[in-house]
Amino acid sequence: MFESAELGHAIEKKVYDREVPKLRAALLDAQYDVGSAKRFPVLILIGGVDGAGKGETVNTLNEWMDPRYIHTHAFGLPNDEESEHPEFWRFWRALPPKGRIGIFFGHWYTTPILRRVYGDIDDGELDRQLTEISRFEKMLTDEGILLLKFWFHLSKDRQRKRLKELSERKKTRWRVTESDWKHFKLYDKFRKISERSLRETSREQAAWTVVEGMDRRYREVTVGKAILAAIQERLKSAPPAKPADVLPVVSGADRKRILGALDLSKKVDEETYEERLEELQGRLNLLLRDPDYRRISTVAVFEGCDAAGKGGAVRRVTQALDARQYRVLPVAAPTDEEKAQPYLWRFWRHIPHRGRLVIFDRSWYGRVLVERVEGFCSRADWTRAYSEINDFEEQLVHDRIVVAKFWLQISKEQQLARFKAREKTRFKRFKITEEDWRNRKKWDAYQSAVCDMVDRTSTELAPWTLVAAEDKRWARLQVLETLCRRIEKTLKKS
Amino acid sequence: MFESAELGHAIEKKVYDREVPKLRAALLDAQYDVGSAKRFPVLILIGGVDGAGKGETVNTLNEWMDPRYIHTHAFGLPNDEESEHPEFWRFWRALPPKGRIGIFFGHWYTTPILRRVYGDIDDGELDRQLTEISRFEKMLTDEGILLLKFWFHLSKDRQRKRLKELSERKKTRWRVTESDWKHFKLYDKFRKISERSLRETSREQAAWTVVEGMDRRYREVTVGKAILAAIQERLKSAPPAKPADVLPVVSGADRKRILGALDLSKKVDEETYEERLEELQGRLNLLLRDPDYRRISTVAVFEGCDAAGKGGAVRRVTQALDARQYRVLPVAAPTDEEKAQPYLWRFWRHIPHRGRLVIFDRSWYGRVLVERVEGFCSRADWTRAYSEINDFEEQLVHDRIVVAKFWLQISKEQQLARFKAREKTRFKRFKITEEDWRNRKKWDAYQSAVCDMVDRTSTELAPWTLVAAEDKRWARLQVLETLCRRIEKTLKKS
Repeated sequence: MFESAELGHAIEKKVYDREVPKLRAALLDAQYDVGSAKRFPVLILIGGVDGAGKGETVNTLNEWMDPRYIHTHAFGLPNDEESEHPEFWRFWRALPPKGRIGIFFGHWYTTPILRRVYGDIDDGELDRQLTEISRFEKMLTDEGILLLKFWFHLSKDRQRKRLKELSERKKTRWRVTESDWKHFKLYDKFRKISERSLRETSREQAAWTVVEGMDRRYREVTVGKAILAAIQERLKSAPPAKPADVLPVVSGADRKRILGALDLSKKVDEETYEERLEELQGRLNLLLRDPDYRRISTVAVFEGCDAAGKGGAVRRVTQALDARQYRVLPVAAPTDEEKAQPYLWRFWRHIPHRGRLVIFDRSWYGRVLVERVEGFCSRADWTRAYSEINDFEEQLVHDRIVVAKFWLQISKEQQLARFKAREKTRFKRFKITEEDWRNRKKWDAYQSAVCDMVDRTSTELAPWTLVAAEDKRWARLQVLETLCRRIEKTLKKS
Repeated sequence: MFESAELGHAIEKKVYDREVPKLRAALLDAQYDVGSAKRFPVLILIGGVDGAGKGETVNTLNEWMDPRYIHTHAFGLPNDEESEHPEFWRFWRALPPKGRIGIFFGHWYTTPILRRVYGDIDDGELDRQLTEISRFEKMLTDEGILLLKFWFHLSKDRQRKRLKELSERKKTRWRVTESDWKHFKLYDKFRKISERSLRETSREQAAWTVVEGMDRRYREVTVGKAILAAIQERLKSAPPAKPADVLPVVSGADRKRILGALDLSKKVDEETYEERLEELQGRLNLLLRDPDYRRISTVAVFEGCDAAGKGGAVRRVTQALDARQYRVLPVAAPTDEEKAQPYLWRFWRHIPHRGRLVIFDRSWYGRVLVERVEGFCSRADWTRAYSEINDFEEQLVHDRIVVAKFWLQISKEQQLARFKAREKTRFKRFKITEEDWRNRKKWDAYQSAVCDMVDRTSTELAPWTLVAAEDKRWARLQVLETLCRRIEKTLKKS
């Protein structure tokens, strides 16, 4: 795969001087068109061997285009804040929004490749990480990102020459570090592992372009033209077609579904409740103050029928905690900024630090619930969301985050009673809206979507807890109890 | 993911008797519609726990539909012939053609899951195999197969009960084997690993349907209805849309490309040639008679410009060998049977046994050469072919098959001279057609496609050898020499 990038590619100065002004003008135009269409973001990954002019090329791109609308991110070793979060968190927060161009420089390929070169991980683990990357990139392109990946390559001889050259010239000496020479000694290994990584992750919508890095003019014009061609073509084409061959989601042949199996008659008397509540809140409080808790964190998701008592249950959890430790995030319609990003972006930004707990009052499951039922997204979108969500939660769990998901269920009659009560009680009236009544009309469709959701996303790593919420006390105790149990289990393991 | 399949799903006899006649009629209709449209094949995978009625359900499906157009395959341990080939070979040869329904029973999931349960492989290797499976299934669905995957589940209690029941009844006793009880002891492990496998491979176009297996009527109607819904919907919908957002394939900014770097002036005099030829043919002959060669095999691919001398080079290889050891496959337009299958099918069928050598005179690379240049397939199709081909060759290499790929290159002038000579020589006239002259007009487009092909598919596992063929003798020696070297390398490793 690197053969073509060892041919000694070069462009004469004359040609360069003639071509670049046209190229710059076209790139600027393309950039403004991307910006005004605001239909998709462009993400450019720059990777490759040391001394191949990656940094210089990025600088040139910034010069050629309007740097106000390009965001360049150089990712090195994770900083303190970054290492408090799952690995991909720092990439998520840096993603360019629709209409903008982002350049990532040192990205999700850097760590796996280097760790494999240095023998910290084996081939199997490298492959696992490459699979994770492929899925992540598939999600990005499914969400409409134009993803362009450039790999800067130098043959071994040329890398040696280049590093020597740089270290001999006074002006550039500082650019060649100890670790560059250390990497050079591992050139063959690096080449082999890079090739494997490129091969495994070069899929049709996220293909690598290998660029020989020896000649400045060549690499600049090559990268510039490739970016231009891809942007121009995307601007011309219709928004990516949704695959028409998504399988229909079908349920079993009888009417028995997981929600129906829930025993809604469970209840607990006031006295027992008060006693258990105090006990569980105390237990939760202690857990979050456990010194070991500083190495983990918790994401609690609350979903449920309207009027099922999510708010009350959430409050019973937060009552137990120090306000500095937790955050409650009510999820409403996405902001403009959030709409300009891939679907999961607005949840990633709130993934907690170590030692914290975040409660999502409604969550990423909106995609397969309200967005599905109300037709806010296509079937292709919500069906692929199941596996995207599983991938997402898997990443959280691997980073020692407890993912506790609660569905609070009440009967249709109970809902009616609570709606009516809310309308009567003055201070509760704000809680009941036209929309609640509208949703209620789609009761069956919502219930069916919930069952599909549980079937597809209740995993061993991140199981759903279905909570009988007809009796609010029962529901609150079950939530607290489950939360404690899940945290204890993770603490034991870590 | 299995919770919903532990609810004790069942259908009353009354309901079953009322519903089944309608369902059968509809399934038969759907089957005939699939058969007459001949637009896509249907592939049904049946997997799951023992005693969950997988076999009975398959029998029922065969009864309900027209069994002449259903092909049911039960894959057990590989037989002799199968184990002489890469693992997926047996699945490829059993794929249903367009218009037909295939049922696979014991399939590509069985071995990885069982081997993991028995501890023969670790999580990393399981994940690697699941990734391979995901890619394979993506290729199948990209090629238009309607893939339906059913997982039959029983809770632990129910499986115990069911196995007991079966072994107590005289009529069914034979169906419960030692290994069923052995598996049962590993139930928890099996469940956990199955869950992981389903989770990792449930993508939107190849989603699993989990079916509770306790009640015969329930599982039959559930599976029947799911098949019906999926077929009906696919029949209604247009052929799967090709994604519009495939990246354009761009080349470097100068004109230097890998083919141009080839030194075409290389030649060898007659005397040296005869000597070296004899020596290399002897070496190759010995290699294939090496007892160790019985554990490997070779796939040699010959591609090249028209009149570059592929035929002559191939003959110099076969001269060295015993006719029982090799086969030459000239690849022409696909047959009707081949057209009814995924693109790679017609090559898979010719993958050699151990101890053999197969020469493809033109190959699967037609997709990214002639089909690309002549517009016989869409850009989406040929761009995804690069990674499909890499996956394919990776599977071969992992099965200890040497994959040697030769591109024979001549200059445009040399081609003209050879074309003219062919027209003059009577016995060679059949070798030159109108089509050759037509292709010659697209010289640049073809050359560019070759460079893209080499850039994307010359991998460490299966590198391309670019052969300067201006001098036929030089080319033949290089082919023989490379072939010997590649076989020796693999022999040493195995």
